[in-house]
Amino acid sequence: MSIIMNLDTLDSGVKAELQQEIAKVRAEVSERTHAKFYGVQVIVDDVLDLNGKMLRPLFTVIAAHFGTYDSEKMVKLAASIEILHMATLIHDDIIDESKYRRHRESVQSRYGKDMAVYAGDYLLAKTLSILDLETYDAKNIKRLVRVMTQICESELLQYQNRKHVTSFKNYLRIVAGKTAALFTTSMYVGAIESGCDERLARLLGRIGYELGVAFQIIDDILDFSEDASTVGKSVRNDLKKGYYTLPVIYALEGRQETDWTEDQIMLMMEKAKGIERSRTLAKKYTKKAYRHIDALPDGVYKDAVRALADFLVDRAY
Amino acid sequence: MSIIMNLDTLDSGVKAELQQEIAKVRAEVSERTHAKFYGVQVIVDDVLDLNGKMLRPLFTVIAAHFGTYDSEKMVKLAASIEILHMATLIHDDIIDESKYRRHRESVQSRYGKDMAVYAGDYLLAKTLSILDLETYDAKNIKRLVRVMTQICESELLQYQNRKHVTSFKNYLRIVAGKTAALFTTSMYVGAIESGCDERLARLLGRIGYELGVAFQIIDDILDFSEDASTVGKSVRNDLKKGYYTLPVIYALEGRQETDWTEDQIMLMMEKAKGIERSRTLAKKYTKKAYRHIDALPDGVYKDAVRALADFLVDRAY
Repeated sequence: MSIIMNLDTLDSGVKAELQQEIAKVRAEVSERTHAKFYGVQVIVDDVLDLNGKMLRPLFTVIAAHFGTYDSEKMVKLAASIEILHMATLIHDDIIDESKYRRHRESVQSRYGKDMAVYAGDYLLAKTLSILDLETYDAKNIKRLVRVMTQICESELLQYQNRKHVTSFKNYLRIVAGKTAALFTTSMYVGAIESGCDERLARLLGRIGYELGVAFQIIDDILDFSEDASTVGKSVRNDLKKGYYTLPVIYALEGRQETDWTEDQIMLMMEKAKGIERSRTLAKKYTKKAYRHIDALPDGVYKDAVRALADFLVDRAY
Repeated sequence: MSIIMNLDTLDSGVKAELQQEIAKVRAEVSERTHAKFYGVQVIVDDVLDLNGKMLRPLFTVIAAHFGTYDSEKMVKLAASIEILHMATLIHDDIIDESKYRRHRESVQSRYGKDMAVYAGDYLLAKTLSILDLETYDAKNIKRLVRVMTQICESELLQYQNRKHVTSFKNYLRIVAGKTAALFTTSMYVGAIESGCDERLARLLGRIGYELGVAFQIIDDILDFSEDASTVGKSVRNDLKKGYYTLPVIYALEGRQETDWTEDQIMLMMEKAKGIERSRTLAKKYTKKAYRHIDALPDGVYKDAVRALADFLVDRAY
């Protein structure tokens, strides 16, 4: 389900509008991806079910309301962004086989990794092919390409750094690339394609970035939470894969050795207050975002951005 | 190695020019893909080594000589096309684990499928990101996106049809999408970006298409050849994977059952003259290509297209 229902403080008219638009995005995603291939359809349905928050489309649709909102245009743009996100999830799932195992079998163990490789590629290509040059600025289409590159580079960086004590700076680079970049772009292109001026679009993009970094840090914290059922992941999944996220980076700070057991790391993390310090950093980014939200032009959609920010940060503490 | 050395009938000046340009393309591909990630570099080097024919860049560079040739512009364009091709090879390799086993371990068994998934994605994104909007027509960038979609769709179609008696029409659709589409585009965009008129660009694209279909049929025939070492594949690799290519389609024509052993299929293929009839079809496409080559404006690059066509069809018979 979309997260709109959880945005309690939202104006009811805005809520209805966003729900309607996100429903259209969902339909567009289905239509654009289902058409020809049963195998792809099954995988897409699966990803839509499990990751139906539609967070990125929501960013785009909300940002677009700061300009002249064109429903048809924005629905396609938001669908394109969601399809890009889904492609990355499907390919991540090939690597991270255990990701959804708590809920059910992973897509790839059910349908084979073969299909998942092609399905992800197919969605990557779809991301770009559904945006026509008559409606959208080619520069924005190129922006999606750049984000695609950034996501890959960050996944590669993360993969190369596994079982290594990554620097704090490297961690932030990975987070920025794999999560915040697409949040930024979701906001920015929504704003630009709705005729917002560059200044406002950049401001919205910046809010997307800061919320994206906070969101990912919180996600990394949640991987250590006792009851991970809320996020549908197995506990310490990142750690098991050798991905040392922020709480672990705080724990291993200044140490040379890398060959620790999971239990040793958990102990060091507790001593170093890894979780608490990570929360503090997430809060720092959230505060920055709130400050930038304050600078947005007043109106119900400014309130919507704030409600969204509240929801995103509240899921952790 | 590039195939230029094998183009015996080529004018020596043209040969030198093409060699120089293809060397530049190779350098561009390396530079654009190597930069940041050791893991990607290893995979890219591997694919470049094993698939260094640089056939698609050669198509682009030759087509571009029918217009006003701009080396820097064409080298980047050709590199982009080759990177797209490499991305599809890397992802195919994940699925088709045995592909290069005769020569050496497959990329993915050496570096893990994880890295191969991301490396392929990274190259897909690179394909588009290296083409700037100041130099290249956004329409041509979109054409590469469309080709990406076509390749995926065809791979998916092929994958879904495995162990099934595909129709002749379906087979041609798969061949057109997975091979001929990129051959067409290599020619077409090379011509258009060099200022050729639409008519000439389409003619070159059409030649690319026909040679592409012939090339793939021949490739499918070679999978059944006794000495597959020439193409570096294991014999009957397609058949083993359940991909029924043209010779098998001829063999199984009109039959309802699908549950045949490899030996049974080979017998039926011999009876039905599956290989010979496939060769005849490849020749039909080649003849069409030659007829279209005749319609090209006279000159050394028309001869180059013909030399390339000769080489491509001669590798089978």
